[in-house]
Parts: sequence; C-alpha cells; structure tokens
Amino acid sequence: MMHTLNPDRLWARIEALARFTRPDLPWTRRAFTPEFAAARAWLAENFAAAGLAAATDAAANLIGRREGSVPGLAPLAVGSHCDTVPAGGRFDGIAGVAAALEIAQSFAEAGIALRHPLEVIDFLSEEPSDYGASCIGSRAMAGTLTPAMLAARNAEDEPLIAAIERVGGIPGALAEPLRRPGEIAAFLELHIEQNTVLESRGEAVGIVSAIVGIHRLRLTVTGRTDHAGSTPMHARHDALVGAARVIDAAHRLAREMTGNPGYVVATVGRIAVSPNAANAIPGRAEMILDLRSTSDDVLARFPRLLREATAPGLAEMDLAFACELITRARPAPCAPEIREALATAARAQGHAALELPSGAGHDAMQIAEIAPVGMVFVPCRGGRSHCPEEWAEAADIAAGAQVLAAALLDLDARLG
Amino acid sequence: MMHTLNPDRLWARIEALARFTRPDLPWTRRAFTPEFAAARAWLAENFAAAGLAAATDAAANLIGRREGSVPGLAPLAVGSHCDTVPAGGRFDGIAGVAAALEIAQSFAEAGIALRHPLEVIDFLSEEPSDYGASCIGSRAMAGTLTPAMLAARNAEDEPLIAAIERVGGIPGALAEPLRRPGEIAAFLELHIEQNTVLESRGEAVGIVSAIVGIHRLRLTVTGRTDHAGSTPMHARHDALVGAARVIDAAHRLAREMTGNPGYVVATVGRIAVSPNAANAIPGRAEMILDLRSTSDDVLARFPRLLREATAPGLAEMDLAFACELITRARPAPCAPEIREALATAARAQGHAALELPSGAGHDAMQIAEIAPVGMVFVPCRGGRSHCPEEWAEAADIAAGAQVLAAALLDLDARLG
Repeated sequence: MMHTLNPDRLWARIEALARFTRPDLPWTRRAFTPEFAAARAWLAENFAAAGLAAATDAAANLIGRREGSVPGLAPLAVGSHCDTVPAGGRFDGIAGVAAALEIAQSFAEAGIALRHPLEVIDFLSEEPSDYGASCIGSRAMAGTLTPAMLAARNAEDEPLIAAIERVGGIPGALAEPLRRPGEIAAFLELHIEQNTVLESRGEAVGIVSAIVGIHRLRLTVTGRTDHAGSTPMHARHDALVGAARVIDAAHRLAREMTGNPGYVVATVGRIAVSPNAANAIPGRAEMILDLRSTSDDVLARFPRLLREATAPGLAEMDLAFACELITRARPAPCAPEIREALATAARAQGHAALELPSGAGHDAMQIAEIAPVGMVFVPCRGGRSHCPEEWAEAADIAAGAQVLAAALLDLDARLG
Repeated sequence: MMHTLNPDRLWARIEALARFTRPDLPWTRRAFTPEFAAARAWLAENFAAAGLAAATDAAANLIGRREGSVPGLAPLAVGSHCDTVPAGGRFDGIAGVAAALEIAQSFAEAGIALRHPLEVIDFLSEEPSDYGASCIGSRAMAGTLTPAMLAARNAEDEPLIAAIERVGGIPGALAEPLRRPGEIAAFLELHIEQNTVLESRGEAVGIVSAIVGIHRLRLTVTGRTDHAGSTPMHARHDALVGAARVIDAAHRLAREMTGNPGYVVATVGRIAVSPNAANAIPGRAEMILDLRSTSDDVLARFPRLLREATAPGLAEMDLAFACELITRARPAPCAPEIREALATAARAQGHAALELPSGAGHDAMQIAEIAPVGMVFVPCRGGRSHCPEEWAEAADIAAGAQVLAAALLDLDARLG
C-alpha cells in the first residue's frame, strides 16, 4: 500500500503548538495551565480535521478515534504528549502528537481503511508537574497512577485528582486502570532522541530497543550542625562532605557498571542542605538520585553497591545515610514484532534501522505494562532537550513519521 | 583594689535579653528587626542604670560611657553584640554585653573611679544579616566596612546603609573609620567558646591567643545541563559531581594542614545547584567556602592547593572552576599586654589561665585593626552554638566577667 504524508502540514502543526506558550518564558506549556487548555482546544479542532472523533477519557487524555473495518479488534494507538517542562522545547512530545495527527489525516485523505480502529492520543502531563508525578495520563491508562500520586498537592494546595477533574477527567474512574491488557493492539510513539547517537551516526531515524527503568531514591546524609569556625576538622560531622562522597561514588559506580549489563546512568540532580549558611557546618543533606537502566538487576543492586562504596567515608565522620526508594518504573523492552515492523519500514525507506535504548522515560514505558509498544527516535541537535535550544529538523521528523506510518500499516495487516 | 560583681543581676540580664525574641522561632533577634529595636530600648535603660551615658554612634553601635579621672586618656572599651542568628542561642554575644554592663555597674556601685573613660559597647549586627556582611558596627568603627557592603540590599531591596540609618546611624559619616588608632586604649570582650576545649579541660575561663582570619570564597563549578536519562555517563559535564570533588578536597586539605602551622578549618556551608531538578544533570554549582586560620600563609595558599588537588577530577569532565575571594578578615592576634593582664587576673582567681585560639570571628577581630584587643572565653555545653540548645553556666559567665573586670582595673592602672 503506497502512502505519503504531508511534511509541510506536519511541520506547521509543530510550529502552531509552540505558540501556546507562556510569553515570558518560551517554551512553557505545563499541564493544567491556561496555555495547556488553549493548546488542547486547538488540538481537538485538528483531531476533527484529521477525521478523528475526539474526546477526553477519565484521565483527561485527549483521544481521537477512527473506527476500523473489522469489528471487535483492539485499536492501534499512536501519540505522545503536548505539555512541556518550564523553559522547555518545541519538540519533546509535540513532534509525536503532530506526527500521529498527520499520519491519521494522510491515511484518511488517501482513503486507507485500517482493519483496526486507529487512536491518536495526547497523554496528560507526561512531564513532571507541580503535583510531583510524571506520565499522569499514561499511568492512569495502564493502572500505575497510585493513590499517593493522586493525593499529592501543588503549591496552591490543590490535589492532583482535583486538577485532573478540572481539565476534563473523572476522579471516580481512576481507581482502576482505564485500559486492560488486550484493549490496545499496539502503541507506537515518535519522539526526539534527546541524545546524540543518531546525530553522530548521521541517521534520520532510530528504533528504540528498550526504555530504561527509572528508580528515584531519596538519599539523606545526617550529621550535626556546628559552628564553621570553632569546630576543628577532626570533630566534624559534616553532612555535605558526606553527601559529596555519595555524589561522587554514584557517578563512578554508574560509569563502571555501564554495559555490564545494559545502559546505566545515575544522576544527583537535586540537593538541599540544612541550615545552608556560610558559617554553619551542614547537619543534613538531602538528595534525589535518578537511576536508570535497561537492566532490572542493575537497578536492584545499585543502592547496596553505593552504600558499600561510601561506608568508610561516611563512618569516618560518624554520618548516618538513608536511602529510600520513592518512585520506580520498570525497564520496558519494546515489543519484538513492533521493532521488526519498524525496522522493515525503515530499511524500505533507505534508513539503516539503527536500534538504540531510550535513556529517557516516555508514555510508551507506561503503556508497555498493558500493550506491546514501539518507538521511533529522530535526531535532536547536539542532544539538547528540555531547554529553549531544543531543535529537530523538519525532514527528520517527517522521515520518522513516514517509518511509523508504514509500520502501522504493516501491523494493521498482521495483528489479530 | 577589691571588687566583686553581682552574678545574679548578670544572669537576670541575660535572661531578660533572651525574651526579646521572635516568639515563633526562639531565640531569634536579628539586627534591624522590631525585636532588636525593643532589646536596644531595654539596653539603653540598663546602660543608664549602670551609670553610663548611652548614645548610638554613626554606625548605630549603642555605646554607654562613663568618664575617667585623667583627662585626655582614650577609653577602655568592653562589649559584644546582642543580635542573634535565626533560631540561635541566648549567650552568643549577649553574655558579653551583659558582662560589660555588670562590670560597669559594679564599678560604679563600688565607687571605683577609673583613670580612663569606660565604654560599654553593643555592636550593631555582628551576625550575618540579610544584607550579607557581618560585624557591621565593629567594621564601621575600624574602617573595614566597604562601600560594596553598604550598598548590598536585602530581599526587600533596602540597602544596608538605609537600614543603618533606620536604626539610628548616620550614613554620611560612614565613609571614614569612626575611630582611629589611639582612640581606644584597649578593647576586651567576653564570649562563649563555641567549642569544647574548656569543657573538656574542666576550665571555667580561657584566654584567647588569637582570632582566626576568615576568607570567604565563592567557588563556582560550571558544566552543562543535559537530560539525566539520555546522556551517557562518559558524555557528562556534571557540575554537581565536580562540586562534590571540590567539597571533599577542601575538607581533606584543611585536615591535612591543621597545625602546620596554626588552626585551620574549611567549610562549604552553602551550595546552590542549577537547575536543581531530579531529571536534569546540574549545569552549575555555586558554593561558599568559609576558610579560617590563625596563619595568614595558610589562608593565602589554600585556594591554590585546592585548585591543584581538584584539577584532575574536574578536567575529566571538562568542568570550569572559578574561585573568587568575596570577603577577607585578617587573623587578629590578641595584644600581649592584654593577654598578660587576663592571665594574671585568671591565676589570681584560681584559674589555670589556659590560652586557646578563637575559630569564630568576633567584633574584637575588627577592633584589632585600630586597638589592642583581648578576649575571655567561657565554656558552652557540648560546644553547641547558633542553635536553641546553646547553653553556658551562670557561674562560668560570672567567673569570666570577674577575670575581665580585674584585668580592666590592671590595664587602667598600667596603660597610658
């Protein structure tokens, strides 16, 4: 079946979505904000233009649907998210939503009737919101949105569950997964790579082998606050010196474990020191460790290895060290049949069908709990993402969307 | 000359001063606040009760003065500060002000006429304020309060110079030192030790040999913000990992240098990381290093040694490291004639006359720029200070004040 999408319309939709931003802080369209509501209204119109019946589900995911020709088949779903981090970019999530819309519209215009229903999904709040959790919409769909996440409050003391209701969700329906295994035949997502593998290889399209599991841990080092001037070095219980040893050890450990097995990265991105005064020895340091790997075994072993590596340096100053798992997402291998469909499509269109892991979490990672998933990556300049400089080329996004469209047609023919 | 002070009145004044606190956060009486103004009003009444003529100088130091019997002699000054850090203690500074008041009042009641004028000084804002600098009043007196310090603004955008005017100072007079060398015959200060040397030796009184010099340095490590998930370990420029290596190296270096020569302590008490998000590799980390030593040479060499020690660990991640001196106070040796007078008085009262360095800065350190200074330390429980648990025994404070009073009488007789 021959099919070509419209690259100009695809690009124009990406540019149009970017304009729904806080004017003082481009590109900012956080979930639950007025900018987000405006973008959603615009998207609903565009879903209709693409021949899709649009509605929000109980988690306020915006879903456009076109029925298939064979009754009773589960839908093929494709999509991503249109929310951004503060001062983020114009492509993370957005490219995937715009590509899904373009695929649906070009199918409709070409008179291509799928056997399966086709769903285009804009997931709610993939990025971390002021309520804490990320991937809110895809978690709700897969049943991984916990009561604690729903109860978490933003700075204005609004719980997440009320915010979801405010944007069109149905709180009472969120205690159960919105979809069960078998209710989605396959989920496919196009996303920018957020790294430089494709750029450095000169590839326009990559096929994701697996999405890393992510463990977030709260690391707390507790010592004693003392006067910075009058406490001799040997008498200190300096929590920040202890934290420094933990930060360095986590970095070295992840470096050593890389490839043994799989992809491993460990980052301390947040630290809070108390009392945080120039003339006081820190009595407490709290850090968030973001640990990611394609290997469940690495994720499980890391905290113990970190504890062993830092024990002598912490004991020297009689510091206490606590290590608490606060969120956990399992590694999500992409489904072999979808990887194969994507690889076949990529080769047919002249690409190398390079496979690579995703170090970033995506909505597809949540959906992998209930359905086979696959992802297409397109290069992003210098690997920069979550910043205004984030950039992807129109031609690469179109190439990725074209591969995804071809794989969808292939899967539509092959899946039951 | 026999003289005995009133320990109960001394203790009652310490307790009375403690009551001028933010009720929600004991013990908090920061300079420039309503609690501080109320304490100052109470102090002014007590200066009068002690036979002192009280007035504020151009830096809003509260000074009580009693004239001496020999015209033309410079005053003997004694005092400390009544402001506190947030959630601080009831003794740091306060014990010195109350002791000075008690000495003046007991001299007056005993009919002791000094040859020199006697000044009791409550210095303005010895503790760091929201305007940045510490020792504001004693710096102004000694001429070490810089235009940059005076121009620094608090969170409400009020410059320090306006705050000084608000509490009774005269901005136009602050461009010159308020006192010149020779205009103070000697300055003596009683203070809690803020360490455990006296406590562990079972001594009620210690004599300060020298006050450490303090260098505050801004250390900045600059790398690159990248996605915590998609950036492999070998491709990172993680500013927080670099900062961790700097923090650990500063600790180890100060430990190695201790006693070689003199007292050395180094503390990173403040750190700010950007963007400080769990899923972002820190692109920038800014720290304040508080470096103290009785040796000028150690203070001068430390930054270079720190740079050398951290160079390989920072180069590995291609991180930039800047090290900027933001404030500097020279080590202040206490004057030999005052140490001798204090030692003689201490021995006469049955103490060991133990000498020890001060690792904390004090108003005396600033006044040492223009006058001979001496300090008496009294023990504080467990060395705890700048916290609500700060505690000193009434008997120890009285013993320290008695030694200080006897030394004052001795110096009054001997100094020209």
